[in-house]
Amino acid sequence: MNAEIIAVGSELLTPQRLDTNSLFLTDQLNALGVEVVTKYVVGDDRDLLADTVRRAMARSRIVILSGGLGPTEDDVTRDAVALALDRKMVFHSEIADQLEQRFRQAGRKMAEVNRRQAFIIEGAEILPNDRGTAPGQWIDDSDVSIMLLPGPPHELKAMFTRQCLPRLERVVPQQVIRTLVFRVAGMAESDLDQTISPVYKKYNNPVTTILAGEGDIQVHLRARCSNEADAAALLAEVAGPIELLLGDRIYSRNGEPLEAIVGELLQKHHATLSVAESVTGGLLAQRITSVPGSSNYFLGGFITYSRKMKADLLGVSEDILAQHGAISKETAEAMAIGARRRTGSTFALSITGEAGPDPSENVPVGTMFVGLADASGTQVVHRQFFGDRPRIRVFATQMALDLLRKKCGLVGV
Amino acid sequence: MNAEIIAVGSELLTPQRLDTNSLFLTDQLNALGVEVVTKYVVGDDRDLLADTVRRAMARSRIVILSGGLGPTEDDVTRDAVALALDRKMVFHSEIADQLEQRFRQAGRKMAEVNRRQAFIIEGAEILPNDRGTAPGQWIDDSDVSIMLLPGPPHELKAMFTRQCLPRLERVVPQQVIRTLVFRVAGMAESDLDQTISPVYKKYNNPVTTILAGEGDIQVHLRARCSNEADAAALLAEVAGPIELLLGDRIYSRNGEPLEAIVGELLQKHHATLSVAESVTGGLLAQRITSVPGSSNYFLGGFITYSRKMKADLLGVSEDILAQHGAISKETAEAMAIGARRRTGSTFALSITGEAGPDPSENVPVGTMFVGLADASGTQVVHRQFFGDRPRIRVFATQMALDLLRKKCGLVGV
Repeated sequence: MNAEIIAVGSELLTPQRLDTNSLFLTDQLNALGVEVVTKYVVGDDRDLLADTVRRAMARSRIVILSGGLGPTEDDVTRDAVALALDRKMVFHSEIADQLEQRFRQAGRKMAEVNRRQAFIIEGAEILPNDRGTAPGQWIDDSDVSIMLLPGPPHELKAMFTRQCLPRLERVVPQQVIRTLVFRVAGMAESDLDQTISPVYKKYNNPVTTILAGEGDIQVHLRARCSNEADAAALLAEVAGPIELLLGDRIYSRNGEPLEAIVGELLQKHHATLSVAESVTGGLLAQRITSVPGSSNYFLGGFITYSRKMKADLLGVSEDILAQHGAISKETAEAMAIGARRRTGSTFALSITGEAGPDPSENVPVGTMFVGLADASGTQVVHRQFFGDRPRIRVFATQMALDLLRKKCGLVGV
Repeated sequence: MNAEIIAVGSELLTPQRLDTNSLFLTDQLNALGVEVVTKYVVGDDRDLLADTVRRAMARSRIVILSGGLGPTEDDVTRDAVALALDRKMVFHSEIADQLEQRFRQAGRKMAEVNRRQAFIIEGAEILPNDRGTAPGQWIDDSDVSIMLLPGPPHELKAMFTRQCLPRLERVVPQQVIRTLVFRVAGMAESDLDQTISPVYKKYNNPVTTILAGEGDIQVHLRARCSNEADAAALLAEVAGPIELLLGDRIYSRNGEPLEAIVGELLQKHHATLSVAESVTGGLLAQRITSVPGSSNYFLGGFITYSRKMKADLLGVSEDILAQHGAISKETAEAMAIGARRRTGSTFALSITGEAGPDPSENVPVGTMFVGLADASGTQVVHRQFFGDRPRIRVFATQMALDLLRKKCGLVGV
C-alpha cells in the first residue's frame, strides 16, 4: 500500500526551512508496511494545493497533509481539501467553545480569527489536538484515507500517534514488523560500518540503516515477515553478530539516548550526579535534565565560565589555574572534585576546553578535558575534536556521558 | 517567474534522508527574483517521474531536477524527462570517451554500465561536471527551461553556479530583491498576525512570511523591484508600520537570535550576567553561551535541581522553601539574589517551575517563575505555558532572556 505526504506552507519553500514532519510520518508508515511514493511541499495557495491533493488521491490510498490548519488567512488546507473533494465546510460551535475556553484558561482573550479553526470538512472525523489549537481531520473518500494534521511537529506527532495510527491499522493489511536500534557513542561512522557491514550486507530483510550524529551513531534494523516468530528470528540472525562485534560500545538497544541510559544506571546504583561546566556552558546539565525524573539522581551543577568563578564556586586553586591554565587536565580534575564536594554527589563530571570560533590560552579550538570524580578518585580524559562551536560542544558532552556510563556500567557503586 | 524543484531518488523517501539541494537552489532562484512554488521528492520510478515533470512544466517556466543521473538502472531521470518531452535519447561517444579516460586516470577500468551516462536528450545542452561522472543537461522546451543536475550537493552546487546561473540570467527578467527579518519574543502567533495583518495583507510585494517557533516569531519581508531605490522604498512602506505596531516587542531586525541580542546589550552597558536554573536545568546558560564571545559578559551559573542545592548553593532560606515551596515567586526571587551575590554579576536571572511530564508540589505542569535581580531590586514574572517538557523549557528560557532584554534596553545600567 502506498502513501503520499503533502507539507503545506510558503515558509517551507524558503531557503531556511525544511519539512521534517515527513520523516516522522515515513517512519511510522514504513512500520505499518506502507511505502511513501511522493512527497510534496506546496505554498499557501488553495487552488494549487487542491490540485495536488487530487493528484495524490489518484495514485495512492493514503494522503497525509501537514500544516496550514492555523487561524490565519494563509492557512488554506481545510479549504483546499474541501475543494478537491467537492465537499462543504461545516462550522462546529463546540470546537469554537473549546478554543475560547483554552484561551480563557491561559488568561487571554481569544482573537476572533481563531474561529476559522472550527470549520470541518463535511463528513470528516475530528481529530482532537491536545497540544495546540488546530484540530485535525480524517476523511475517507471512496478508497482513499486523507489526514489533515497540524504543522508543529509536537502537535503532529501526538495527533498521528493517538488518532491516526489506530485508524490506519484498520485500513492497512497486517504485517509483522520488528525493529531494533543499537546506539553507539564515540565511534567514527566509517569505522563502525567497516566493522559490521560484512554482517548486514548479506541481508535485504532486515533492512539495516546507519545514522551518524555528533559523537553518536544509530544502527536501525527492520525485519518484515508474515508472522512474529519469523520476524524475531530474522532480526536475531543479524543483530546477534552485530552486538558481538560492537561489544560495550553499544550503549542502548531500544533507541534511548545516552542521557537516559546514564540516568537509569545511576538510579540502579542509587547514585547521584553533579556537573561543573566551563566551555559547554550548561549543555551537559541540560541534556541530563531533559530526561523526565532526572531530579531523582541529578543534584545540581556549576557553570564556571571565568577563572574567578572556577576559583570562587568550585574552589579550583589559583595555583592550578596559573600553572596549568583553565583548559588543562589539572583544572578539569579540580573542577570535578569541587563540584562533588559542594553538592555531596556520588559522581561529578567536569568539562573544560575551547569550542571556538577563536583559540584561547594557546589552546587549539576543539581541545577538551573531561573529568570524572567519585569516592575512589578522579580520572580525566583529553580529546581533540573537529568542527564548529555547536558540534564541538555536543561532542564534549557525549564524551562526558559515555565516560560516566562506562564507570557506572563496569563498576558497582 | 516561478520554478519547481524535483528531487529524484528512493533514498530520499526513507525516514532518514531529506533533500537539502532544494534549499540551495531556492536561495539562488530567490536571488534572481524567481519563486519556488512546489517541491517534489519522487522515487526511482520512470513513469511517475515523467508525469511529475509534465505537471511541473504545465505550471512553471523553470523546472529543476536533481539526482538520478548516475550509471545504474535505478537512475531514471534522463529517460523520464525524454518521455515527458517525447524526445529521443542520443548517445554521445565523446562523453563516453571522456568517462573512460577519467576512470583510466584514476587507475581503474570503467564498468560498462557507466556508458548509460553518455545518453543525452535530443536538443539538450550538455552541462559539464568537473566534480563527478554524470554530466548535466539543459533543455529549452517551448517557454520552459528544464535542468537535469546531479544529486551529490557539491556536484550540483558547482554545476548550477557555473553552468545554470549564466543561462538563467538570460531567461529571467532582471530584478532587485531586498529583505528584512523582524524577530519577536513572547507573543502568540495569532495575536501578532492580528496586529500586523491589516498592514501587510494589502501588499503582494513585499511578500510577508510569518514563522513561529517556541516563544519566538520571525516576520520575513521580501521586496522585488526593477531598481534598488524602489525596492528600499517599498520595503520601508510595509516595515515602518509593522515596526510601529510591534514596538519594543521586536528584539531583532537582522534575524539574530535573542541570546545574541541580549549579549550585545550587556556588552554595550559593560554589564555581566549570571543565572540560577532549576527546571530548565542548564538550557538558559547553554543558550547564552552558544554565542561566541559570551565569556565577555557571562560569569557563570548554578543548576539547583533539589531544594537542598537551592539552599546550599544559592542561600535560599529554608523558611522560604517551606512556606512558599520551591516553585514560587519567593523562591525565584531568592535564587536570583543568591546567584547575583555569589558571582558579583550586574544582573542575575533565575527560573523555577514545573516542565512535567508529571505535576509536582501541587503545581500544574507548565507553571514558570522567572526572576531578574540587579542593584535596584528584583522582579519576578509568573506564566503558565502549554506543551511538552522540551517546549515548556524553551518557552521559559525565552521569557527570561526577553525580560533581561527589556530591562537592558529600557534602563541604563
